[in-house]
Amino acid sequence: MIEKGTLIIISGPSGSGKGTVVEKLINTASYALSISATTRHPRDYEKEGVHYFFKSVDEFKEMIENNKLLEWAEFCGNYYGTPKEYVMGKLNEGKNVILEIEVQGAARVKKIFPEAVTVFLIPPDKEELRKRLTGRGTEDSETIEKRIQRASEEIELLPNYDYVVINDEIENAVERINCIVKASKFESHRYIEKIKDFK
Amino acid sequence: MIEKGTLIIISGPSGSGKGTVVEKLINTASYALSISATTRHPRDYEKEGVHYFFKSVDEFKEMIENNKLLEWAEFCGNYYGTPKEYVMGKLNEGKNVILEIEVQGAARVKKIFPEAVTVFLIPPDKEELRKRLTGRGTEDSETIEKRIQRASEEIELLPNYDYVVINDEIENAVERINCIVKASKFESHRYIEKIKDFK
Repeated sequence: MIEKGTLIIISGPSGSGKGTVVEKLINTASYALSISATTRHPRDYEKEGVHYFFKSVDEFKEMIENNKLLEWAEFCGNYYGTPKEYVMGKLNEGKNVILEIEVQGAARVKKIFPEAVTVFLIPPDKEELRKRLTGRGTEDSETIEKRIQRASEEIELLPNYDYVVINDEIENAVERINCIVKASKFESHRYIEKIKDFK
Repeated sequence: MIEKGTLIIISGPSGSGKGTVVEKLINTASYALSISATTRHPRDYEKEGVHYFFKSVDEFKEMIENNKLLEWAEFCGNYYGTPKEYVMGKLNEGKNVILEIEVQGAARVKKIFPEAVTVFLIPPDKEELRKRLTGRGTEDSETIEKRIQRASEEIELLPNYDYVVINDEIENAVERINCIVKASKFESHRYIEKIKDFK
């Protein structure tokens, strides 16, 4: 029997290095990334079933009505959501499925899927965050200060998460998340089925 | 600043291999074993502060009254308890403190010390348990069947624990507990203090 995978929800402010950490994780065999459904138009390089599942507004609304999404939200006139079937399929294959999602979405998924493990990724401190955001060279200083302000606000929400991982070095952060996922396999709720060997 | 250790409560039925697993863990630098206080008389080989803290009944009762015990119980006319000060001291030194304790005691400690990580160690199945108990050669078959019956009853309580570790091989069980303890360091409640770097 294949051991079911763990659903890992990862959130973190802009500059936390979330994208790089998630990329490293999904490059190992035991992880898969959840793929979102969206009604926005694909960009040139984006492939169906790789970057997104592209849907019409009608199709998306049908998914909402038929309870086929773990969560969904509207953003800038487009719908975005997490198809349940894809996630469940991967979990049943034994993959640990990563859902990279913002704080409100994370809270909604955790509510309906309490066995998910929620991880909040943070930079070591404000100065390091400022350095990273400045280092990108893509945003002006006003935008950077806004992002730092937003990060401070988001970090207040970390008690809502199961785990907090400080991303001081990518390799450390990846190892910490690996350890959390391994430990999650031993959570007692996973054994309620298995103890029938003792009856 | 020294990172505070984790209090790990380990329970498990007779034959789960708890003693061997705990011994392996405390032979590594990051673990310490909690030492019980008792009013029973020391056996020849037992040393004060190594096997137990030996106390008179009056001294023990004073510890109860002054709230100096994490938990205590009376067994065969003797008192047994877990001195708080010793555990706290080791945790503050950064050691992960192991408390090997039966299910009722575990529940009492978890209640007043919710950040403790509780682990229930079990043998892989009933047959393996019977094999181990028989292999000891110290008990007759009636006692062994009683122990198996008791194990089945105790295992029903595993949902009260945070984690369940199957002890198929000692080394596996030790590695699993190590992973659980590492992951516990990233539990979000430990970060509530640390996020002041973002304010």
